[in-house]
Amino acid sequence: MYRLVLIRHGESVWNQENRFTGWQDVDLSEKGRAEAVKGGKALKEKGFTFDVAYTSVLKRAIKTLNFVLDEVDQVWLPVHKDWRLNERHYGALQGLNKAETAARHGEEQVKIWRRSYDTPPPAMDPSDPRHPSHDARYKGVDPKLLPSQESLKDTVARFLPLWKEKISSEIKSGKKVLIVAHGNSLRALIQYLENMTPDEIMGVNMPTGIPLLYELDADFKVLKKEFIGDADEVKAAMEAVANQGKAK
Amino acid sequence: MYRLVLIRHGESVWNQENRFTGWQDVDLSEKGRAEAVKGGKALKEKGFTFDVAYTSVLKRAIKTLNFVLDEVDQVWLPVHKDWRLNERHYGALQGLNKAETAARHGEEQVKIWRRSYDTPPPAMDPSDPRHPSHDARYKGVDPKLLPSQESLKDTVARFLPLWKEKISSEIKSGKKVLIVAHGNSLRALIQYLENMTPDEIMGVNMPTGIPLLYELDADFKVLKKEFIGDADEVKAAMEAVANQGKAK
Repeated sequence: MYRLVLIRHGESVWNQENRFTGWQDVDLSEKGRAEAVKGGKALKEKGFTFDVAYTSVLKRAIKTLNFVLDEVDQVWLPVHKDWRLNERHYGALQGLNKAETAARHGEEQVKIWRRSYDTPPPAMDPSDPRHPSHDARYKGVDPKLLPSQESLKDTVARFLPLWKEKISSEIKSGKKVLIVAHGNSLRALIQYLENMTPDEIMGVNMPTGIPLLYELDADFKVLKKEFIGDADEVKAAMEAVANQGKAK
Repeated sequence: MYRLVLIRHGESVWNQENRFTGWQDVDLSEKGRAEAVKGGKALKEKGFTFDVAYTSVLKRAIKTLNFVLDEVDQVWLPVHKDWRLNERHYGALQGLNKAETAARHGEEQVKIWRRSYDTPPPAMDPSDPRHPSHDARYKGVDPKLLPSQESLKDTVARFLPLWKEKISSEIKSGKKVLIVAHGNSLRALIQYLENMTPDEIMGVNMPTGIPLLYELDADFKVLKKEFIGDADEVKAAMEAVANQGKAK
């Protein structure tokens, strides 16, 4: 039996402002830092330790991981920072808030971009200084792979090679893996692990900062799925996730 | 021409208590965190950026690096945490303070352990729960390589393979490398780069938290060596290092 723990980064300063963030490298808010520490403490309390961690190249995820590692006293853990765990690239919407976006493109259109599995938002112009092709952290990545916009389907497609080539073999070699990432890159993994339809995965929203434990059999079939933390908060998080599924 | 930046971690809580630390994984003090932030700000001010960072598997170095990366806005940088950058292993002295150690072993003996290049301190018993062979972070290391005690000469011997096999080739491939480590693992590197005698390197003490820039030619000959930071503090640090050299 294998164990895998996922954590969605704590609140960022743009979550607070209700802006589309995507690959924009915004920092954790004060609340986000507290969420990360709390998630780490919950793991510590249950005696979790890890052999390796994966995260994105965005600071809200990396810093969440750093807080968690500090709490479980494993700051020394090998950490792989990989762009394929980044948030979905929100294209030209990055930086806009919902109100601005609705004013510019209409409410119906915004709903489609947010709720559709395979409709990408409008592309970011490759000459935009914020485009990944101008960012040093993606220097080692084949430019053809760098997105100007992504649907969730696109995010799944660029995440899966990382899972198949690296993370899954670490797990199979017996390593306890921790993944700290983003709402949509974690959706990509959850959809794959749980074999969900596009509709099903669009209805799932990971709560921030609450570790999610998967127990998997030798064929990576999910045996158990459990949030780790304060009983009341976990219950609230699970209900929220379930209701999101229904409301869709 | 190549550039390489070294930083010694900020003050730890055991530096404050004047205890032999070695491989004991003690945290930064409040002052140590402030030193790390200041070192990062100094690099930021001069426009330094990096391609890869190396550090030890001890949290006082890793956290110093994290503070520095946050200041230069490169939290996403690939980081290699390697035990060969650890502090010198202080054997059975780890955890003792100077007064205790002098009472137990005599002042003359303590002076020899602290000042000699090749006399190791007494060994830590391999059954001691603090011995590296019982620590998960060294699980992947050949147990024969894990020390029970080290002289500076031993520290140099276990550091150099990391330099020769990995760090130097990263530099030669054109990458800007940042190394955040410890008083003695940095001495190992400085001795090698500057081709110093044992006596000379024993007289060198790196100031904490002040980045040290090396400019190297194609054969890794030192062209320039410069502390980066506030002019007065850099001057004080350079004088302190020079005086330590003389006092010996």
